[in-house]
Amino acid sequence: MEAEASGLKKQQLHTKLNGPTNSMVTPLLTDLYQFTMAYAYWKARKHLERAVFDLFFRRNPFGGEYTVFAGLEECVQFIANFKFTEEDILYLRSSLPNCEDGFFDYLRGINCSDVEVYAISEGSVVFPKIPLLRVEGPIAVVQLLETPFVNLINYASLVATNAARHRFVAGKSKVLLEFGLRRAQGPDGGISASKYCYIGGFDATSNVAAGQLFGIPLRGTHSHAFVSSFMSPNEIIDKSLCRNDGSSTCEDFVSLVQTWLRKIQVMRSGVPNFCAVALALADLGYKAIGIRLDSGDIAYLSIEARKFFCAIEKEFEVPGFGNMTITASNDLNEETLDALNKQGHEVDSFGIGTYLVTCYAQAALGCVFKLVEINNLPRIKLSEDVSKVSIPCKKRCYRLYGREGYPLVDIMTGENEPRPKAAERVLCRHPFNESKRAYVVPQRVEELLKCYWPGDSGKAREELSPLKEIRNHCMRQLDQMQPDHMRRLNPTPYKVSVSAKLYDFIHLLWLNEAPVGELQ
Amino acid sequence: MEAEASGLKKQQLHTKLNGPTNSMVTPLLTDLYQFTMAYAYWKARKHLERAVFDLFFRRNPFGGEYTVFAGLEECVQFIANFKFTEEDILYLRSSLPNCEDGFFDYLRGINCSDVEVYAISEGSVVFPKIPLLRVEGPIAVVQLLETPFVNLINYASLVATNAARHRFVAGKSKVLLEFGLRRAQGPDGGISASKYCYIGGFDATSNVAAGQLFGIPLRGTHSHAFVSSFMSPNEIIDKSLCRNDGSSTCEDFVSLVQTWLRKIQVMRSGVPNFCAVALALADLGYKAIGIRLDSGDIAYLSIEARKFFCAIEKEFEVPGFGNMTITASNDLNEETLDALNKQGHEVDSFGIGTYLVTCYAQAALGCVFKLVEINNLPRIKLSEDVSKVSIPCKKRCYRLYGREGYPLVDIMTGENEPRPKAAERVLCRHPFNESKRAYVVPQRVEELLKCYWPGDSGKAREELSPLKEIRNHCMRQLDQMQPDHMRRLNPTPYKVSVSAKLYDFIHLLWLNEAPVGELQ
Repeated sequence: MEAEASGLKKQQLHTKLNGPTNSMVTPLLTDLYQFTMAYAYWKARKHLERAVFDLFFRRNPFGGEYTVFAGLEECVQFIANFKFTEEDILYLRSSLPNCEDGFFDYLRGINCSDVEVYAISEGSVVFPKIPLLRVEGPIAVVQLLETPFVNLINYASLVATNAARHRFVAGKSKVLLEFGLRRAQGPDGGISASKYCYIGGFDATSNVAAGQLFGIPLRGTHSHAFVSSFMSPNEIIDKSLCRNDGSSTCEDFVSLVQTWLRKIQVMRSGVPNFCAVALALADLGYKAIGIRLDSGDIAYLSIEARKFFCAIEKEFEVPGFGNMTITASNDLNEETLDALNKQGHEVDSFGIGTYLVTCYAQAALGCVFKLVEINNLPRIKLSEDVSKVSIPCKKRCYRLYGREGYPLVDIMTGENEPRPKAAERVLCRHPFNESKRAYVVPQRVEELLKCYWPGDSGKAREELSPLKEIRNHCMRQLDQMQPDHMRRLNPTPYKVSVSAKLYDFIHLLWLNEAPVGELQ
Repeated sequence: MEAEASGLKKQQLHTKLNGPTNSMVTPLLTDLYQFTMAYAYWKARKHLERAVFDLFFRRNPFGGEYTVFAGLEECVQFIANFKFTEEDILYLRSSLPNCEDGFFDYLRGINCSDVEVYAISEGSVVFPKIPLLRVEGPIAVVQLLETPFVNLINYASLVATNAARHRFVAGKSKVLLEFGLRRAQGPDGGISASKYCYIGGFDATSNVAAGQLFGIPLRGTHSHAFVSSFMSPNEIIDKSLCRNDGSSTCEDFVSLVQTWLRKIQVMRSGVPNFCAVALALADLGYKAIGIRLDSGDIAYLSIEARKFFCAIEKEFEVPGFGNMTITASNDLNEETLDALNKQGHEVDSFGIGTYLVTCYAQAALGCVFKLVEINNLPRIKLSEDVSKVSIPCKKRCYRLYGREGYPLVDIMTGENEPRPKAAERVLCRHPFNESKRAYVVPQRVEELLKCYWPGDSGKAREELSPLKEIRNHCMRQLDQMQPDHMRRLNPTPYKVSVSAKLYDFIHLLWLNEAPVGELQ
């Protein structure tokens, strides 16, 4: 009874695991070969062998030296609800007609209760080779998870990183709006772009569905069609507008606007219509929000508009009119933001769509999922291309921080090696380059991989954070990086290392596994 | 009773309109500004005004001169089920706290029964400026459709075009497999990639969920992890294999493979293990499928493998062994396929992932949705950039075919102009260049826009075709194009024109709308 109550309490502490945001994310959202391999494992009676896989990427995207890790919550929601339906089994049976019945009975019984997922917290700044997820469990089950996990993390991390890079160029004081839904790669390309751009530092989205699903603030402007649907001011039937304080009603707001327009037109500018409306609104106690520039030379136009707003503030004594928000939104990307900064501009807020959400500059992140251990025996993937060699063994990962609070280096160790200690010397070795090594005395040591899905109820599970907290975590992580890793031009690579013991082990294994060449 | 029965019959003829594939495609999957504009229309009592919008793109993707149109079925499924839930209304109310109650009552009552959608058939080859969809209805409703329609069509058409381009380079005889799920932009980025790559000419996918949803053939290989999960042949417990014809059982298949391996190893090649297994299988009446090359020089390795297969066929007298399927799958794209062709290769089947599904070479198509008429009055969008000027009026579109069966030119006319006739001279004018015009005598005239969603039950609605038929239609459409539009290098632009009457009207409207410049 008490155990039950405490179990219930524990459950209530946790985010509800109702399944992934997109109901199309089911155990069938995987590659066929995961099932054919699962069958082969089953036939070889290997399917229950305990395997450890690392999910990691090999290169930071966008020519940068950092990546924002995202997509973890969706992965946890997925495995928490992993179960084949009878309809799924029926379809699999028809697709794999040569498999024995017993295999489908086995699939029917699968859930992820004996799978363990250790992961870096979502929104963290991460680097190549370091496992983002370490997944351990029966090999047949863990292989089935490969494709959905990689799918859920690749784009999420890519677009979160893209958002962080746009934020970096735009600067902290600007408002960044994600306007990408219509150009995104499909409906949930749009919805997940909104979610992960928010994590990466955007302030709001135009996507109403994403607002509803995730509580992201909504923002918008209006389109050209709206303007051109009005043939003349005569179409405005109800011309009255109540004062903001409710004290009286202006019976002909349109005339009030036209009066202002005549006063302004002597000042000759491109934004008189907006200003006339804004001034008439000010007369009635309302504050207009601002303008959007969607074409032309945005730097120049924003400066001219600002001058005009300031001139009006002075001319007609309307306090704050000069601070009117100027939003820009014409095919913006990192490069155009950078060019605007160099040119000088008066834009307060950027609406960014296509280049942000499709990750136009690099449309894919190459996360992979590699076997590193089976039955407690380490496995290595060799390749003539050293960047493709995987780091074997079930590992622990740490981030070592320096005196100024910056992360200095990430280090991977074997599972059972002692944890590096603050204020003690740690030898950090490049995993594949013998001569690259350094002693580091960390001020602080952070273990990166935490348990997000427990094999049994004995282990404490990390809480999944609300979106807003993931975003805050991401902002803090980006802030604490040494600036030379973050700059757009020639950033310095952040160091990723292995312990001396793991280094020796990798190279011993490599020699054992690699075929000996023979010259003829 | 009779009317009811006939209605039922009509309904049964049609594809079931159960809603979009992805249940996240709801009326909230739109930009916030569509709601703020809808509110403004409602306040101005303009929301029921009848508007016509064209959905079109301005430039073909991937540096080519054609595009495959896809995504129509999802759009029709969407409007057929367009309805706000009470939960949606609650959320909108909280997001737009300044809107009057009456507006939400209005939203509650909206469906798309008074919207008309005319469209080009899905899988057609299409060109810039020609409307893919012409959407007519109450302006507030049609504006709400803009974002989801553009979202559903942009990526679908982009990735179908990308698939068609890969097919073009690979040639008709090759098997093309879509292997992109793990690198796609999110879960339904993967699922819709599988659907639209199939339309564009791929033969199969690795994505099991897409197989289940759409009946697309499934294919797969196996991963490196599978191989490295086995430490030695001793792990194979059940060594027996029954002959394919059931006549007897080989008790030690592993030894049979090893016997073959010793015979082959004197031939020195990279594929002896596969061949030993394939030969042992052949002994028992099975046919091995083939190998996958996933790294190294694919052209060279495929030629060497083919030589080896042929040598084995000859040496051991195994008929057909030389035709063993060789699949390749290492970061392939249009360029690498082209390079392989130039180098010469023996690959039968290509597995293509990242570059195909993320449309890496150009990650977005720029479909737009422009107001062309309101209350029977034409609207034009002007721009200093002539490629951004929209073509006004509710229009009809025709494809004119020549003697050899090739399409010669697409032409847009006003809605009430007479239809161009076969064997009669038609003046086709460039919409914005006065000097570009030509008389065309078409052999055949095809009207492009057909009714896919009726305003009332009086009109015949075009049937939504099954996926396989859409794919066949696409293959036929691609085949009938004149080759100079299709080539990868410097393709010839296909001509898109307007009638003489529409030309005159556009330019009259332009003069009327454009502000007269004033030099100072």
